[in-house]
Amino acid sequence: MTVYAAPPRRVREEYELDQALIDRFAAIVGDSHALTGLEAVEPFVTEQRGRFAGVTPLVLRPGSVAEISAIMRLATETRTPIVPQGGNTGLVGGQMPDRSGAQVVLSMGRLNQIREIDLLSNTVTAEAGVILENLHVAVDTVDRLYPLSLGSQGSCEIGGNLSSNAGGVNVLAYGNARELCLGIEVVLPTGEVLDDLRKLKKDNTGYDLKNLFVGAEGTLGVITAAVLKLYPKPKGRETAWVGLKSPENALALFHLASDRAGPSLTAFELIAERPIAFALKHMPGAIAPLGAAWPWQVLMEFSSGRSAEDARALAESVLEEGLERELAGDVVIASNIAQSRAFWRLREDLSDAQKPEGGSIKHDISVPVAMIPIFIERAAQAVEAVCPGARVVCFGHMGDGNLHYNVSQPVSMDKTRYLEMYPAMNKAVHDVVRDLNGSISAEHGIGQMKRDELLATAPPIGIDLMRRIKAAFDPACIMNPGKVI
Amino acid sequence: MTVYAAPPRRVREEYELDQALIDRFAAIVGDSHALTGLEAVEPFVTEQRGRFAGVTPLVLRPGSVAEISAIMRLATETRTPIVPQGGNTGLVGGQMPDRSGAQVVLSMGRLNQIREIDLLSNTVTAEAGVILENLHVAVDTVDRLYPLSLGSQGSCEIGGNLSSNAGGVNVLAYGNARELCLGIEVVLPTGEVLDDLRKLKKDNTGYDLKNLFVGAEGTLGVITAAVLKLYPKPKGRETAWVGLKSPENALALFHLASDRAGPSLTAFELIAERPIAFALKHMPGAIAPLGAAWPWQVLMEFSSGRSAEDARALAESVLEEGLERELAGDVVIASNIAQSRAFWRLREDLSDAQKPEGGSIKHDISVPVAMIPIFIERAAQAVEAVCPGARVVCFGHMGDGNLHYNVSQPVSMDKTRYLEMYPAMNKAVHDVVRDLNGSISAEHGIGQMKRDELLATAPPIGIDLMRRIKAAFDPACIMNPGKVI
Repeated sequence: MTVYAAPPRRVREEYELDQALIDRFAAIVGDSHALTGLEAVEPFVTEQRGRFAGVTPLVLRPGSVAEISAIMRLATETRTPIVPQGGNTGLVGGQMPDRSGAQVVLSMGRLNQIREIDLLSNTVTAEAGVILENLHVAVDTVDRLYPLSLGSQGSCEIGGNLSSNAGGVNVLAYGNARELCLGIEVVLPTGEVLDDLRKLKKDNTGYDLKNLFVGAEGTLGVITAAVLKLYPKPKGRETAWVGLKSPENALALFHLASDRAGPSLTAFELIAERPIAFALKHMPGAIAPLGAAWPWQVLMEFSSGRSAEDARALAESVLEEGLERELAGDVVIASNIAQSRAFWRLREDLSDAQKPEGGSIKHDISVPVAMIPIFIERAAQAVEAVCPGARVVCFGHMGDGNLHYNVSQPVSMDKTRYLEMYPAMNKAVHDVVRDLNGSISAEHGIGQMKRDELLATAPPIGIDLMRRIKAAFDPACIMNPGKVI
Repeated sequence: MTVYAAPPRRVREEYELDQALIDRFAAIVGDSHALTGLEAVEPFVTEQRGRFAGVTPLVLRPGSVAEISAIMRLATETRTPIVPQGGNTGLVGGQMPDRSGAQVVLSMGRLNQIREIDLLSNTVTAEAGVILENLHVAVDTVDRLYPLSLGSQGSCEIGGNLSSNAGGVNVLAYGNARELCLGIEVVLPTGEVLDDLRKLKKDNTGYDLKNLFVGAEGTLGVITAAVLKLYPKPKGRETAWVGLKSPENALALFHLASDRAGPSLTAFELIAERPIAFALKHMPGAIAPLGAAWPWQVLMEFSSGRSAEDARALAESVLEEGLERELAGDVVIASNIAQSRAFWRLREDLSDAQKPEGGSIKHDISVPVAMIPIFIERAAQAVEAVCPGARVVCFGHMGDGNLHYNVSQPVSMDKTRYLEMYPAMNKAVHDVVRDLNGSISAEHGIGQMKRDELLATAPPIGIDLMRRIKAAFDPACIMNPGKVI
């Protein structure tokens, strides 16, 4: 396991947990839901990419809001740091305890009830520990769509989705987790419960507390439940794979499709040739959608609330015009659901397909949509300057201005030596992002991974305001310390 | 002019402005933009409905962000309360100084530049003092739509729209002012400038500061500019007027239209027969859209990004099915733009049409959409219990769950006596709202009008968190004191 340069951690030895305190916490949830010992806590202190590893004397798995409230009261009383954790799929270490051994993990998975599906208001009220895919299934059975769609949806949880303001492939038409949330229930550091589980589309009664907790990565309170928006299931959906010459053509095609299809354009994913080549080489069963290896490719999805025929006609008219105007060089529209799934599987495989190619330095950036071609050009130069021969692996949610701009090591370089360039490469790419007034974390959040960079590069006034909020909400600094701010 | 029971005001005599301080403020903007004297300040201390009247020794009309910054620095140094004001169209007194004579009005109208229209990113960057209608015109000339649409758009300003998170008739498809804003520039009470003018659809770098300032009604800082989303102009638009038997039928018709048209359903306004009768009686040129006086009527709008024919076909298919299923009793689709405008004018005239009918007690409520029929039934009983014979004037943005539930006085009652029931009537109607987990201010905000009620009835934990934010952002309490919180 590789553990990259971690941000400085505040080791809070003064708060180290003694057995008596562990027993008091355990008594709240019951012994069988209070995990101690290296083996039992291991799944909660390591994560899939092997980047962040923590230490904890105690993982609590509460089964009710009342238990969480009691845990937080005790944590405040004893100044015990609490690290809320959902499905443990976060990519920036926000869900990991530090290595002090003084932080308690609060795992939300047992708080997994869907409290209500309201078909007339088109809302679902779900607890934080509901797994995203389970929510999809539950609302699908009543002919509704909850559009948040992530690679990790088989294990990520609603509370984590909201705390990290998750994005994914459907943001273009439906917005990110923030936009899909109407109301929340939060346990504050004091144990008090803020019940703001409203189903309202309009509510102007004071400051927007909901949007403070959403995206705060568990540093202000513990989201325990939320009211989420549902949509009618599209009656038709068409998936297309397009070959193009350049990012400029992709941008023009995006504008054409947006103009013609409006909110019926539900995905627009840009993918360079290299990540596709990696997937075709390394992922079993991967099939090239196009006959030729176009330097840039786009995965598009059109959804229609009207009919399957309507989705088909829309996709065809946009793509025909794209071909006529020579924005698109080649087009394949999936002829059946199996082919559509294969397109999406190829897209989802792009991350894993990098692993056999050695070390990968990752970015999750966004810029104004119109700046995507310029970013791609400038970032490539920046990468080459840091590490000649490094291989850019560029793909992402172009319609949102969001690219997962990853960089695989040069073929013959030592992996460890390459990964030592992580900070320098991040800085070089992020300098381009900052120059274009973009974001160094479009959808993954700050966690512990990007905290130092955020603090060092964000406008000091913004950081100051965030710190004031943190101090106002969590004066004892027990909520996920060392993360975000 | 009637001035209703105002919330208690904190008279801050200790801060009363002397001439030397007035001169220092005036020197920042130049004498010609520093208004003093009763006559000069009168337009800034009274408002159209005549509900709130304030007193100020000084109205400042700065012409740049630098001047606003200097004003706020001086205000912090001297603890001078500042009341930011946009187009002075707010309905809850948020833009009015109190009657202490110690509050300075900061009128934003000269900060009225459209800094940039970015056609590729579909954004406009506008200063706070840009009048909404001027923004509409500017983006219309480049074939774009900024969908925020309000009755006051000829005089309201972008800064006020954002500070009050304005709603209006297009929220159903496009969201309210909050959802239309990508980035903001804010001058803090200290005079520091937070530049967050980003064009990003995704940005997860710390707490959501933008959404704190949006909707804060100028109590946390002064919004000076914003990046706003633009949309392609619809290629087709159809307006329909529908007669129905009941709110239940309106709800079913709304669900039918949402299901068929999705985001192409861009307005769904419910109107009871009485407000229409008032408008036909009192508003010159008002014409009844339908042949009969249906007890409930709906104004619907369908917009298509594809073509005029598409919008027409969509409207016809939804409304035909509505008639077949007997949800709609009668339907007229506007046959030309003039008729469509006449429909909308009738809708916009509903407020003014109440005036000749005597005193009106107003509400701006929202409930979950599915609860609209229940709200209408229960609220009518509550009104009758407070004042037998009072005439409910119910209309609003039903698609958003938002009704302007006004109550005109009984025909023969003395107006002053009726208006004395304002607090009792508000309480009775708002009790129904609270029972249905709704909002007592869906789109107008809290201002000074609803502050006491918010503080008395909102969950104490929420109020406590809001107060902590206020103290953290504005420790000297100079930003619009006496408003919201």
